[in-house]
Amino acid sequence: MSPKITTELLKQLRQVMKSPRYVQEPVQAYIVPSGDAHQSEYIAPCDCRRAFISGFDGSAGTAIVTEQHAAMWTDGRYFLQAANQMDNNWTLMKMGLKDTPTQEDWLVSVLPEGSKVGVDPFIIPADQWKRMSKVLRSAGHDLVPVKENLIDTIWTDCPQRPCKPLITLDLSYTGVSWREKIVALRSKMAERKVLWFVVTALDEVAWLFNLRGSDVEYNPVFFAYAVIGMNTIRLFIDGDRMMDPAVREHLQLDSALEPEFKIQVMPYGSILTELQAVVAGLLPKEKVWLSDKASYALTEAIPKAYRYLTPYTPICIAKAVKNASETEGMRQAHIKDAVALCELFNWLEKEVVPKGTVTEITAADKAEEFRSQQKDFVELSFATISSTGPNGAIIHYKPVPETNRTLSVNEIYLLDSGAQYKDGTTDVTRTMHFGTPSAYEKECFTYVLKGHIAVSAAIFPNGTKGHLLDSFARSALWDCGLDYLHGTGHGVGSFLNVHEGPCGISYKTFADEPLEAGMIVSDEPGYYEDGSFGIRIENVVLVIPAETKYNFKNRGSLTFEPLTLVPIQTKMIDVSLLTQKECNWVNDYHQKCREVIGAELERQGRLEALQWLIRETEPLIRVQ
Amino acid sequence: MSPKITTELLKQLRQVMKSPRYVQEPVQAYIVPSGDAHQSEYIAPCDCRRAFISGFDGSAGTAIVTEQHAAMWTDGRYFLQAANQMDNNWTLMKMGLKDTPTQEDWLVSVLPEGSKVGVDPFIIPADQWKRMSKVLRSAGHDLVPVKENLIDTIWTDCPQRPCKPLITLDLSYTGVSWREKIVALRSKMAERKVLWFVVTALDEVAWLFNLRGSDVEYNPVFFAYAVIGMNTIRLFIDGDRMMDPAVREHLQLDSALEPEFKIQVMPYGSILTELQAVVAGLLPKEKVWLSDKASYALTEAIPKAYRYLTPYTPICIAKAVKNASETEGMRQAHIKDAVALCELFNWLEKEVVPKGTVTEITAADKAEEFRSQQKDFVELSFATISSTGPNGAIIHYKPVPETNRTLSVNEIYLLDSGAQYKDGTTDVTRTMHFGTPSAYEKECFTYVLKGHIAVSAAIFPNGTKGHLLDSFARSALWDCGLDYLHGTGHGVGSFLNVHEGPCGISYKTFADEPLEAGMIVSDEPGYYEDGSFGIRIENVVLVIPAETKYNFKNRGSLTFEPLTLVPIQTKMIDVSLLTQKECNWVNDYHQKCREVIGAELERQGRLEALQWLIRETEPLIRVQ
Repeated sequence: MSPKITTELLKQLRQVMKSPRYVQEPVQAYIVPSGDAHQSEYIAPCDCRRAFISGFDGSAGTAIVTEQHAAMWTDGRYFLQAANQMDNNWTLMKMGLKDTPTQEDWLVSVLPEGSKVGVDPFIIPADQWKRMSKVLRSAGHDLVPVKENLIDTIWTDCPQRPCKPLITLDLSYTGVSWREKIVALRSKMAERKVLWFVVTALDEVAWLFNLRGSDVEYNPVFFAYAVIGMNTIRLFIDGDRMMDPAVREHLQLDSALEPEFKIQVMPYGSILTELQAVVAGLLPKEKVWLSDKASYALTEAIPKAYRYLTPYTPICIAKAVKNASETEGMRQAHIKDAVALCELFNWLEKEVVPKGTVTEITAADKAEEFRSQQKDFVELSFATISSTGPNGAIIHYKPVPETNRTLSVNEIYLLDSGAQYKDGTTDVTRTMHFGTPSAYEKECFTYVLKGHIAVSAAIFPNGTKGHLLDSFARSALWDCGLDYLHGTGHGVGSFLNVHEGPCGISYKTFADEPLEAGMIVSDEPGYYEDGSFGIRIENVVLVIPAETKYNFKNRGSLTFEPLTLVPIQTKMIDVSLLTQKECNWVNDYHQKCREVIGAELERQGRLEALQWLIRETEPLIRVQ
Repeated sequence: MSPKITTELLKQLRQVMKSPRYVQEPVQAYIVPSGDAHQSEYIAPCDCRRAFISGFDGSAGTAIVTEQHAAMWTDGRYFLQAANQMDNNWTLMKMGLKDTPTQEDWLVSVLPEGSKVGVDPFIIPADQWKRMSKVLRSAGHDLVPVKENLIDTIWTDCPQRPCKPLITLDLSYTGVSWREKIVALRSKMAERKVLWFVVTALDEVAWLFNLRGSDVEYNPVFFAYAVIGMNTIRLFIDGDRMMDPAVREHLQLDSALEPEFKIQVMPYGSILTELQAVVAGLLPKEKVWLSDKASYALTEAIPKAYRYLTPYTPICIAKAVKNASETEGMRQAHIKDAVALCELFNWLEKEVVPKGTVTEITAADKAEEFRSQQKDFVELSFATISSTGPNGAIIHYKPVPETNRTLSVNEIYLLDSGAQYKDGTTDVTRTMHFGTPSAYEKECFTYVLKGHIAVSAAIFPNGTKGHLLDSFARSALWDCGLDYLHGTGHGVGSFLNVHEGPCGISYKTFADEPLEAGMIVSDEPGYYEDGSFGIRIENVVLVIPAETKYNFKNRGSLTFEPLTLVPIQTKMIDVSLLTQKECNWVNDYHQKCREVIGAELERQGRLEALQWLIRETEPLIRVQ
């Protein structure tokens, strides 16, 4: 992978940073966050401004360009990838390491006195604006909104904003109608005494209306905002997709509805002016609720006295707790997904060992092919991480022709992949060896497995936050001086974004609402050795009530049930490092894989894969 | 324990809340925090205003009195105690429980429109002022500073502020001279480009000048502030204690020093006006550093543009990492403390079992007697928690005649105690049974022990924050649906406060700087059953480097070494619930107790206690 040459682009950007055509006053620094106007993690090509200016296209990163410098902040998952994709114009700022300055502190250290720092107010979240603005101001600088996006002014071949058809989801998938969701939202609004709620996150709009889209790859969402009043519903969306009879029927656009359920459809671009109009009509003490991560532009449109900000919206929290229909859908999606992976791993074994012709890319394509054969398959849920040998150590690696390696009997292969089915979203990582793993590779794999089990089997009180479980995943690695530089788990949507808030399992304590039954998260510890190999074992798990011997303060306890049912390669396990309890966990898990996935493989007539499954789920035997 | 009758006092307070003699405008609510002007946890009798107005004298709690209500916020340690000590005028607000409102939210819910909420600006920390003020303002109320403390106006027999002689500590105790500490502080100030540093915490003043006092019971501190400039040192302190020749010599007050080390002594009460004078002389961009927990009064004296606030001061962080002299002193103090406890437990066994005449109070007195026989004993480090049976479930119980129970062969006895020696501070909890514990009591004790060992034996990367270790202490309890409602550990001072920042081990994520070698914390999981018994096992442990098989990213690893060396009662352990590793930990620990404390008992000629120690440290045998 050769880095993108950005010398000319940076020169152009530095010119527009001083051009009176675009900025009222010259800005000495310009911030290019990775998000879009909805603070999405995955973004449409037209929003990939940070990748355009720097070459670095990982999912997380913020670029800052000053007259002298160009710097990129990203986290441990992307250190290697960013270093490979950026040219010498860029300095990599490794977040999470002790000596790495924050963006604000770095700006203060490099900027000349009284500088202006520009940013697109629709792209920067309000909470981040506030934090940066405060530090900059106290150092004598100013954070200023630049109305026109400066990257767009130099991006001559910028793609169009997508506007693809919508999918309607009926009650069998969602369990709850959009009308009921609106009623529940209004009751939360009444509780907090707010009159208006602004829906800015794309997955929240999609969830609220039981609609899905395909404007953003991997995330079944569509560009839209919504503003919900106590008696009005406004949906801001572009294109002729609202002409689709199925959508009109689903939203009852042509029915004689009670006025409070009548949806007014408005152009996507009119959100700011409409919001300003709403605000203009407010009486003192009337409030508008939005996420504190909404864009600075929308937040600023609501004067402080009328603003009600929370870190998590009621939609975000309701969406995280899956109902019975969603849970059942997720179960079914994971069964289909496991069938596809059993087929893949069986195929890989036959191809890799004798022929040696499978590459990371062909393996990923084959995985997609098997998934696409399953009912209600829509698309992948993220770019498949198909990585062998040293590529496995690049945590969010995506194979491209320049880096594509051939799978072999000498290297560890790591596959992190998932799909969107109409009934659920999957995300699973398995690490395997097609030859004979070394004792050291098995040792590391077994520590990761012990961590995976420690989280999956953990019992903890109702209301525990995920960050309190993170160390369980690391303890076996820590004992030997090892660790991994990423969180242990993230929330997973139900036919929605594969990463969703407000819960997760991480040493970081943000994005961390208490866990409750019905939430779905991933459990994915790992171990990575730069230049050698990567190991990760990931299941999607459902939070369920746990039966315990006692019940302190009647709080009740929770634990996890794996939804992912794909064998964990026993060849990679050093059984002597497992306790009897851990050994039993693996055997019980494999027994369940055999029963549930075996039955489905049989039903689908995939008998060769069934044989593979039966072989791979043979019980471990631990010698005392 | 009968509650304090507060009807008349509350009536008087509500009168002064409206009296133009004390308040510019009537206040509809008055906040009585538990701290003093230094945000101390332990306070002098003259500062016990919250206890005076409510009767509740636990170490943590905030009272708020409105025209209609009187409410007390406290945490899980004090729910029972507060409920027992307060009369029906008071509502107990149980912090940490889901449905308990914050003070701000509660105020907003009960106050009439446009209320004023008063507080003493010297008592409320600036960060708390800011948070409360913001919420109150956004609800249309005002937080206002009330110059004269309203409790003091009705507290007719309020004791005088203490002003006791000072102790000077030489290099053999402190390892570093106060001059070197000033030099190090100034270099931190230069790094952050601040010209002045205001020392507001009493233990920080004491540590900086290598002085100790006895103005506050249990904490060897004295009432003082300091303001350190790049070329000046101002110490604000009252009384004739600066006339003491030893103190004058120690601080070199009469020597011909370089001017930048010349200490100017000023009256304690002049801090605000002197600080205002310092601020008046500042040029633009010149900064004054102080803790964000300093009082609102001092913080407000520094205009925002000149203010540099951090959650932890450089003194707080330097103080937490003990040097070789301090560590050696702490070791010696813990050896002496263990000798005293072996004597006590040997004595208790002889007294409790046959005679049945020992009470919680006499046991606590006897513990103090044995401790006071040890070299360099100064005082206790906190009020001894000597509790048997149901009293053990009151987490911060202190026996008083009304509650005093007799130790017996039928109840669990919990003793949490510690002392100040000139070479170190101790804090140890042991839980024991003088008869035959029930299977259930042993089961609970063993879970707590497993948690204690899990933390003590944990290996974790350099730079890990304590909150990431907290769940290790709970995991065995959680597995059975049990838990405890307090943190697992706190920082411990070196002949200073028994609770100190900035590190600790807690599910709460504040007060949590990364752990590093040389820090000293407690490890004290517990289990409490209201009305029945309490169990806690507490050692003070030193953070030390750990040897590991591998060393990921060259970060290095840490673990703990117990400084406390007092046997853990094996009679209370259900060995079948321990793993072999845990069993080995107990045996190794007891072997060390036998070697180190045994030698000292022998040296001191305490042969009966030595026999007790040898019997109590017999190895556990685990049947597979």
